[in-house]
Amino acid sequence: MAETEGSFTRARLEAFSDGVIAVIITIMVLDLKAPPGAAPDELLALWPSFAVYLVSYLFVAIYWINHHSLLGLAARVTPLLIWSNSLLLFFLSLIPFSTAYVANTHLAALPMALYGVVQFLCGLGFAVTLSVITADRKRDEAFQTRAAARVRKNLISLAAYALGVVVAFANPMLSLAIYLGVSIAYVVPGLFEASSDRARNR
Amino acid sequence: MAETEGSFTRARLEAFSDGVIAVIITIMVLDLKAPPGAAPDELLALWPSFAVYLVSYLFVAIYWINHHSLLGLAARVTPLLIWSNSLLLFFLSLIPFSTAYVANTHLAALPMALYGVVQFLCGLGFAVTLSVITADRKRDEAFQTRAAARVRKNLISLAAYALGVVVAFANPMLSLAIYLGVSIAYVVPGLFEASSDRARNR
Amino acid sequence: MAETEGSFTRARLEAFSDGVIAVIITIMVLDLKAPPGAAPDELLALWPSFAVYLVSYLFVAIYWINHHSLLGLAARVTPLLIWSNSLLLFFLSLIPFSTAYVANTHLAALPMALYGVVQFLCGLGFAVTLSVITADRKRDEAFQTRAAARVRKNLISLAAYALGVVVAFANPMLSLAIYLGVSIAYVVPGLFEASSDRARNR
Amino acid sequence: MAETEGSFTRARLEAFSDGVIAVIITIMVLDLKAPPGAAPDELLALWPSFAVYLVSYLFVAIYWINHHSLLGLAARVTPLLIWSNSLLLFFLSLIPFSTAYVANTHLAALPMALYGVVQFLCGLGFAVTLSVITADRKRDEAFQTRAAARVRKNLISLAAYALGVVVAFANPMLSLAIYLGVSIAYVVPGLFEASSDRARNR
Repeated sequence: MAETEGSFTRARLEAFSDGVIAVIITIMVLDLKAPPGAAPDELLALWPSFAVYLVSYLFVAIYWINHHSLLGLAARVTPLLIWSNSLLLFFLSLIPFSTAYVANTHLAALPMALYGVVQFLCGLGFAVTLSVITADRKRDEAFQTRAAARVRKNLISLAAYALGVVVAFANPMLSLAIYLGVSIAYVVPGLFEASSDRARNR
Repeated sequence: MAETEGSFTRARLEAFSDGVIAVIITIMVLDLKAPPGAAPDELLALWPSFAVYLVSYLFVAIYWINHHSLLGLAARVTPLLIWSNSLLLFFLSLIPFSTAYVANTHLAALPMALYGVVQFLCGLGFAVTLSVITADRKRDEAFQTRAAARVRKNLISLAAYALGVVVAFANPMLSLAIYLGVSIAYVVPGLFEASSDRARNR
Repeated sequence: MAETEGSFTRARLEAFSDGVIAVIITIMVLDLKAPPGAAPDELLALWPSFAVYLVSYLFVAIYWINHHSLLGLAARVTPLLIWSNSLLLFFLSLIPFSTAYVANTHLAALPMALYGVVQFLCGLGFAVTLSVITADRKRDEAFQTRAAARVRKNLISLAAYALGVVVAFANPMLSLAIYLGVSIAYVVPGLFEASSDRARNR
Repeated sequence: MAETEGSFTRARLEAFSDGVIAVIITIMVLDLKAPPGAAPDELLALWPSFAVYLVSYLFVAIYWINHHSLLGLAARVTPLLIWSNSLLLFFLSLIPFSTAYVANTHLAALPMALYGVVQFLCGLGFAVTLSVITADRKRDEAFQTRAAARVRKNLISLAAYALGVVVAFANPMLSLAIYLGVSIAYVVPGLFEASSDRARNR
């Protein structure tokens, strides 16, 4: 009994994180308020809200997929891992807020900058969790090499988010394009890399 | 370790999809706003909202059931499958929006057409996911035959949704009846087919 | 492959139902709106909302527990079981609506009657699901005897809800007391029965 | 069949509790309303809301982690355990309400006291669940010793919450600091204790 008291399985950490991410990705749409009237103008006025909702959905979907792969790297579930994962989920939970803020204000400068700050924080939470996992597998050299590649990719996206935040004050639309670009840069190579990886194992 | 890093089990894809669908089906009711007063008129004024909520609930329930059967067809979880599944979930996440839009405007023409567009998109997302799975099992001929039957059924329902979108501008109530009809056409034969299927295995 | 295509495990039906019920029980509190000001009067004015939230929470918790035991009775997962379960979940999804309606109108007569109608429908959905399961186990006599006891208990609670609906028009508070009474009648004996049942197996 | 009818696995109790907690922790952010305009003042005016959201998130995350460890202590799942767990989840479900109340009123005295009352009730629900589990393992002396240490920690935090409630009427900010202090006192030693515990088992 004593052994199981304090232990936490990776399966449960994943299941809880999946639950939180499933709720985040779904409640965002609650802020996409349906127009009170049926006039076409009222519907068309929603396009900036819809565009930012689409970007946020893509962003959270990418985090969901990468989060799975992230936890798969962990040698074991330590209290530091649980807490860095909670920090990452906290930053992700701010996405519906920043999405609604941008949508409410029709892609204004300050909200678009804040949107980028939240995406930066999510990237940071991811980097912290990755480094907690890496620190726990110090002696595994093959792992360290692969982790270094991930860290580089992570740092590049953090730099891009920071750039987007600055650009937001000059041109919010360009800033949104940068945020979207980072997401696409995550999705597209994954589709091919992974496919070719697996083709070999067929 | 290396093998598990990139792998994604079907169980986890199902569990996450179930979580998203469970939230979608439940938060729709949040848009069914309780009247502020106790007068019978205020309650009766909600019947169009209630009718469309019922249709949407039925629609999402059908998708939940068919989604399970869809993932059951996949030979393996590929990145393309994960992304086509995310696309399907994205279209499903728009259902609470289109439902609230129709309810807010008391079944007006444009909202009813948009409602059909969202259902069409869900059907399309389903078709894309099905074709991703089918393409991955090219050499399995028995599977290809059964998949072809599913594709036919899928195309017929897409055509019916497109018809409903056009009809909405002339007669929104008829359009809602078409959407409901497609749903019923999915549920009713399933009840009998599946029962007779299983009777043989008893 | 063919065998698994159409099959649905009880575990998945339970997990999805649990997800829906977890969302229902939690989003109800979203309708318990925090007062905009800090005056004690504004907080005290919420007591009817709080009382009805408490009754609804207890109600949904009981359904969660009984639902688990209900699915445990099923010999197999048939399409009829999936659909009767979806009907039950649909009725349960109306609880946040009826709870908010009663709370908004400070326990007025019509809302309190509607609240009872929703509870009656939940009881009916439960009875339908139970009869679908019972019909599928016709030849198991021991099971039929136990099922008959459950059906009796179910019918008594349906009658009590119907009584509550009628009483609501004369005295809403008495009606709420009846609804609460049915819930307590479900919880209290369970605490002792189950304990003594298990004491024997220790 | 008969044996499984009434039985409830710990896994299912955990999964349902996780679902409820995942929804609670995520819907809290819905009350962090995005400003309607893009002026910096409107965003800065949200800092008290943000501060209390952060404290509540930390609080719920701690309960999630301790809840897992709590259920891990149970020898079996009894009806009393199910119901004391439901009581704990009920109190936790009030957190989004008390958080929104404090945020709406910009950290006023009465809301801050109520916030502490809800945290006290959560601590009480935890203590009740712990004592139900402890009472069920009377003959396990090693367990009783460890449980006594947990009870002491629990009583100290209950006393701190009670102190926070009283202090709220004199100085709400100090009160919030006390609530936050209790949370930190739970997290920080856990990080080190658990790490050293596990270091021995490496």
